[in-house]
Parts: sequence; structure tokens; C-alpha cells
Amino acid sequence: MSQKPTLPKGTRDFGPAQMGKRNFIFSAIKQVFEKYGFMPLETPAMENLSVLTGKYGDEGDQLLFKVLNSGDFLSKAKETDFAAGSKQLLPKISEKGLKYDLTVPFARYVVMNRHDLALPFKRYQIQPVWRADRPQKGRYREFYQCDADVVGTNSLICETEIILMINEVFAKLGIKDFDIKINHRKILTGITQAIGATGKESDFCVAIDKLDKIGIDKVLEEMKGRGISEEATQKALPILALTGTIEEKIAHLKNILQNSEEGLQGIKDLEEILETLKTFDLDQHHVDFDVTLARGLSYYTGAIFEVKVNNVSIGSVSGGGRYDDLTGVFGVPDLSGVGFSFGVDRIYDVMEELDIFPEEARTSTEVLIIHFDDESKKYGLSVLNQLRKVGIKSEIYPDSAKPKKQFDYANKKNISYTIVIGSDEIATQKLSFKNMASGQQEKLTLEEILKQLSKH
Amino acid sequence: MSQKPTLPKGTRDFGPAQMGKRNFIFSAIKQVFEKYGFMPLETPAMENLSVLTGKYGDEGDQLLFKVLNSGDFLSKAKETDFAAGSKQLLPKISEKGLKYDLTVPFARYVVMNRHDLALPFKRYQIQPVWRADRPQKGRYREFYQCDADVVGTNSLICETEIILMINEVFAKLGIKDFDIKINHRKILTGITQAIGATGKESDFCVAIDKLDKIGIDKVLEEMKGRGISEEATQKALPILALTGTIEEKIAHLKNILQNSEEGLQGIKDLEEILETLKTFDLDQHHVDFDVTLARGLSYYTGAIFEVKVNNVSIGSVSGGGRYDDLTGVFGVPDLSGVGFSFGVDRIYDVMEELDIFPEEARTSTEVLIIHFDDESKKYGLSVLNQLRKVGIKSEIYPDSAKPKKQFDYANKKNISYTIVIGSDEIATQKLSFKNMASGQQEKLTLEEILKQLSKH
Repeated sequence: MSQKPTLPKGTRDFGPAQMGKRNFIFSAIKQVFEKYGFMPLETPAMENLSVLTGKYGDEGDQLLFKVLNSGDFLSKAKETDFAAGSKQLLPKISEKGLKYDLTVPFARYVVMNRHDLALPFKRYQIQPVWRADRPQKGRYREFYQCDADVVGTNSLICETEIILMINEVFAKLGIKDFDIKINHRKILTGITQAIGATGKESDFCVAIDKLDKIGIDKVLEEMKGRGISEEATQKALPILALTGTIEEKIAHLKNILQNSEEGLQGIKDLEEILETLKTFDLDQHHVDFDVTLARGLSYYTGAIFEVKVNNVSIGSVSGGGRYDDLTGVFGVPDLSGVGFSFGVDRIYDVMEELDIFPEEARTSTEVLIIHFDDESKKYGLSVLNQLRKVGIKSEIYPDSAKPKKQFDYANKKNISYTIVIGSDEIATQKLSFKNMASGQQEKLTLEEILKQLSKH
Repeated sequence: MSQKPTLPKGTRDFGPAQMGKRNFIFSAIKQVFEKYGFMPLETPAMENLSVLTGKYGDEGDQLLFKVLNSGDFLSKAKETDFAAGSKQLLPKISEKGLKYDLTVPFARYVVMNRHDLALPFKRYQIQPVWRADRPQKGRYREFYQCDADVVGTNSLICETEIILMINEVFAKLGIKDFDIKINHRKILTGITQAIGATGKESDFCVAIDKLDKIGIDKVLEEMKGRGISEEATQKALPILALTGTIEEKIAHLKNILQNSEEGLQGIKDLEEILETLKTFDLDQHHVDFDVTLARGLSYYTGAIFEVKVNNVSIGSVSGGGRYDDLTGVFGVPDLSGVGFSFGVDRIYDVMEELDIFPEEARTSTEVLIIHFDDESKKYGLSVLNQLRKVGIKSEIYPDSAKPKKQFDYANKKNISYTIVIGSDEIATQKLSFKNMASGQQEKLTLEEILKQLSKH
């Protein structure tokens, strides 16, 4: 007997309604990326495991989906490999995996094409990635990433442009209440120096990264647990609690970091980014300097970003930062850059929660032609021809069916208008034009209908 | 030491230049699909092997990429499974595979969502699929399919709309010399009956499917080898060699198929499809009735299509047909429909060969701002702000560098225009505006530049 089909755990289908909304988000992001000179790149779903393994830590290696070699995949495996377990057998039976993020494939691409690329190379990439994570609400095993990176330049104009792009994307999406939190790795280094915890930077960062989740008291406890002295944590407390305008915070920190060359360099970078931002007379730039922003610090070396939408359940929707060595692991050192990523699934959820998807995010047919008999169906085809000639998304109900069934189809498919054609309509050349949302119906000539539709 | 990274065999990166051209093709296809009421669907890359296996024949099962279970993938495997070989071990260590086409995932989606779908359901799907085929020129292990299907209706309007959509897509792409070959499975059945080879239909079709490759003599030989009598092949010969207009061929076949109910039904369908086509006053419909067109017949049950571009090396770029049972294998019988697929890689190759990609298929920045020093760079940022405000894709060279290096960047990235800013330009407010293709350069105010750019 036939089986009842299912989807793999943690994966999703995107039907027409979701696709319309998702494409609305993708399209806003792409338009902005391209306006800023970023060009599209796509890399394969599969990468060699030699490219992927060791790039995401032990946990990441575990979470890679591995693809069995094709054909007789056991041909290189010995019984002793099997007996030794999964870990030893793996390299004998699998050489490829599904990509885990877009950064490592991007680095591989840059290395393989470095002689042909125009540097600085600005690329964006919007593709699914796969992680064998335990699925849970909002966490999937296949999800899209949406990255933009510039490599091959240290210019801080790139950081400013990231802020500008985030502002433009969110304006296009209609998300108004958000903050672009910015910090700088060197400022964090400077703080550890200033509080007397030099060298404890990554412990410091791991702890403050949890501030939102566990609160300041537990963060200080965690610092102590990680070998930061009581005295240092006490010194950290007022720094982490800094308030005021960006300018006030910077002034305060300049004082605190006066003996840290790195810390002052971080401040200087931040000032330059903000100064350049002024050239681009935004009404509001949404930037907030947040010394408690840490992000995956092992990777980043300069400015770091995170975007939070306010007053929604999952606020963090975008992040990124500057790194100084994208491709060293593939033998090409010193290629620095800055990148960031939009979390499309989260932006989707935020926009649903705020109920701000516009009408245009609804991909559907504009007009359905409904008919009563063979004659009106035939007449309907000629009407359809006229509608499509002027580019109107339109269809005719293909079968002969009761009008109710045809109207049901229009409703189920969320079609905006119907044109109902019967013998009366053919005789008078006045067609019944119905707005499916309002229920309003008029008898109009085809010409009048085309005129009305062209207004939308 | 670092490794030299490589791509898995049979896979490709698509850099900015290729992406621009590919997106041009995708976008033309999507626009047409949506205009005809087809809505987008995306399904995951991975499907359960229970969904995929047995749907593509034994060879297809071999060509599925299988994904190892995550974690300790050997936990369910016994030593006897290993000893028995790949085939027995496989189900113990792998439950998922990469999708092989878009039809089976579509059928799964329809079955899983049948209570919510508006029938007839018109969907299009543009996604990569994976096959562990031996890579060769024009054949990849990861490639995009681009399908449109309607299920839940027997209406032949759908067949006509396929012809219309193909015409519109090719018009948008600028492909002018092509044929939409059409045939009907029932006509092929009728022919086998008429020549006295009843029941030998699939042998007949396998043979004529090779006509283009091996020629008529070898096709007849193959028929004989497959148990079709000498007499029958002799009768087939003039039918396969039918020439004339569509109407002439139809008239001729009506005579030949006069005793085959099925054959005459096929002819009737064809006539209806062509009659409906007349409603849509195309200048040229490109349809050619080709009795030698067979296609994968095990699947199709009605009209079949194939699109050939003339005077190029690989001509066949699209195909499809009607089937009467999409979802029976998943326990939902009698859902009939019609679908077809554009071969995007082949269309890409055809357009390259004909050199007809238009300027708009070139995704690149329109304007690069080039500067001499810190002051002109700063001034350049304000110019950049003005360009982007009116939506012009533009960028500034982010580093301080010699003009030659900046011009090289513009050339390498295929940027259309540069605006060169030095102290003279700032003083006179006349910027050097250069057309990078023609080399022509003028001194213009920013306002004049914006005016010129808005013309393109």
C-alpha cells in the first residue's frame, strides 16, 4: 500500500502565501544590496568535507549534514573501520557535506577565484544552509541566510554603508522601531584591560553575551566563575551599565580607556563610522552604541553589529562585523573585510507579529474569469487574452463548473477580482466585475475594467 | 598547513556575471508564470528516502544523493549489515536524500496539503535538484529545474496556456527561432494499433525517441529488435515521415487512425488545443505537430511537448506533458494534470551561443566614484548620497588609492560610468563624468549627471 508522505524533521515547505511574503523580504534586501554595489553569488549546496570540517568548532562539525559517497559507498571501508565506530568510518564513506553557513563557501570562492576578482570584492549571497540541530520553535534544519560582505579593504566606509543598508532595508520592509547596536572588539579588549582582566577577553565576552538572557548579577557571577577577579567585575559593573547618548558614552569611555591603545583605537573607529554617517543625512540612523554587545568574538576583530526590533518577541534579526582574516584557513592570509547577515525567518516572524506585510507581498492572481457555459467560457478566453496583453495577472477557471465552485476557487486563492460572464454579459458587452474583498459588483465594459485595474 | 580548496565534482559556483544572466532568465520565466496564475512553491532540499525511493526506477535510486543520519549514524547498524554491503547497510544509516526532481516533492506537497489547496492547483517551482550522475559537458550534479504544473483539471485550456507561456517566455528572452513540438500519447497508441503492433507501444516509443540521434534506419532496426514485425515497421515508415502543415498531418492521420478510438481522441484533443490557441491571436505560435515526439512515456498520458531552439548546438530546452495520476503513489489517486519544465542551464547556453543576453542582464554597479585625496573622498561620499537617493546603483572606491587602481576596479567590475573628483572638480562644481565603454568624458554638474543617468 501507499505510504503517507512526511517532511524531514526541521524542514518546511513554503506554499504560495508564504513565498509571496518571503520574496517581498528577499527582493527588498536584494535591491538595497545592489544599490550599494554588492553583486550576487551562489555556491553549491554540497561542499567537500575538507572545506567544511574544522571551521565551526567540534560542535559545528557534529551539526554538518554529511552526504554518502555515491555508488558502492563501502568500497573504501574496512571491517575495522566499522568496528571502530561512526567517527572512523565517516571519512571512508562520505566526502561531501551540506553547507553550514555562507561564509566558508564565500571564503573558498574568494580563494579559488582570487586572480579574477576585482578587489575590494562586494558580494551578497541568499541561499539555504543546513544544520543538524535539534529542531525547535524558530530553529530549523534548513533555513536561508542572507549575507553581504566586502573583502579586501580596511576602509570604515564599509561599516557606515552597513548601517545605511540596514536603514534602507528596514524602511522598505516598513519596520520602524528598531536599534542598530554597535560595538567594537577593541573597545571590549580595552575594557578588560581597564578593569584589570587583561587576557580574559573571551571569558568576559562569553559572559556579557548572556546579559539579555540571565541579567547582570548572573553575568558577574559567570565572570567570576571564569576566573575574572571580584575587583575586576566590580569595576566592570558601571561600564556595562553606561547610559546616555552615543556622544556621552564615548566621552565616558575615552576616560576609562585612556591607557588602552587598543580601546582608544576602537573608539576612534567608532567615531569615524559615525562621522561618515553624517554625510548621509538620514532622518534617524537608529544606531545605538552598546558596550555590552559581544557576538561570536573569536571571528570578529573590529566593529560588530546587531539589529534588534523593539516590542516584538524575537527581536534580534541581523548581525555582523569586521574580521581581519577571512581566507587564512585556505592559505590566503590577511584578507580582511566586513560582513553582515539578515535573518530572514526572524524578519518574517517580526513582520507577521507586527502585521505589516503590504498588499504587494501577496503573490496572487489579480483577476479570475468565471463562466456559465461553453459559450461564455469561449468568450472568457478572449477577455483573458485582452487582460494578459496589458500584463494583468489573470486566469480563467479551466473546467466547466457551477459559479459557486469558481467563486470558492477565487476566494481560496485570494484572487482580488472576478469577471463573471454569462449570455447577458455577452449580449450587452457589459461584464460583471466583482471586488472579492469588498463584495462590490458592477457591470462594466472590458475597456472600463481595464481602466479600473490599471489604477491598482 | 592549509589545504587548497576545491569544488565537489559536477557542481558550480555562479559568480556575479553568471548570476546576472541567470536571474534575467529566471525573472522572465517567473513573470510569465505569475501572469498565467501560477504561484510559487519551495520544498526542502532534503526529502525522506521513503518519499524519493522507487519513484525514478532502479537507476534513479542509484543516482539519489543520500544524507547520513546525524549523530552516531551507526547506532542502528549491525555488523551483519556492514558485511552484507552498501545496499543492506544504507537504510540503517541514512533516512534522507537530496531531491532528484521537483515533481515528486510537488506530489508529496499536494498530498500533504490537499485539504487546504484550491483545486485546480497551479504552482511553479524553481529550485536546484541533485543527481549523482557522471558529470560531463552540460550535465551537472546540482542544477536548477524550473517547473510549472496544474493539477486537478482535465481542461485542455491548460495545454494551450503552456504553448502561450512558452511563446511569451521566449519573446522576453529574445529567442526567436524555435519550435514547440507537440504530440499526444493517444496518437502514438493509435499508431501502434494502426500498424499492427498493438501492445508494443512502449517499445515503439523508446525506438522513435532516438530518431534524432540514430536516424530512421536504425530506429526501424531497433523496433524489429524489440519484437515489432517487419510488416509493422514498414507501415510505420510513412507515418513517421509525415510532412506538411499541421492541418495536413492531422487530416492524414485521421485517415490512418480511423479504427483507433484512442488515436482519434488524441487527434481531437490536439485540434481543441490548437483551436483554443486561435483565441489568443499570436503572430506566430511556433507549434509543430511531430508524430515522432515520444518523451518519457511511462509517465505521460495525454499531450506531450518539447521545445527546440533551431540552429544551435543543444536545441532541446523545455518539455512536458499531461499525466493522469500525479499522487497515486502517495495514496491519492486520480489527480491528473499537465506540467512542463524549462531547462535553465540549456537556455543559458543557447543565449550565450546566440549572444542575445541584453544589457539589463548585466548586474553591476552603474557608477563608481573615484577620488584623489581625503577631501575629494569626503566630497565623493556626499555625491554618492545624492546618487543613491534617486536609486542609482553606485559605490565609492573605499580605500585611498591611485586613480589607475580605481579605474581598474571599475573596468574589472564592468561598471558603466565613473565620476572622478579632485580639487578642481570641487572648486568648479563640475565633475568628470566618464562613460567607461566609450571612454567619452565630460565635465558636468551633479545635476546634469543625474539627468543623463536617468535616461538609461
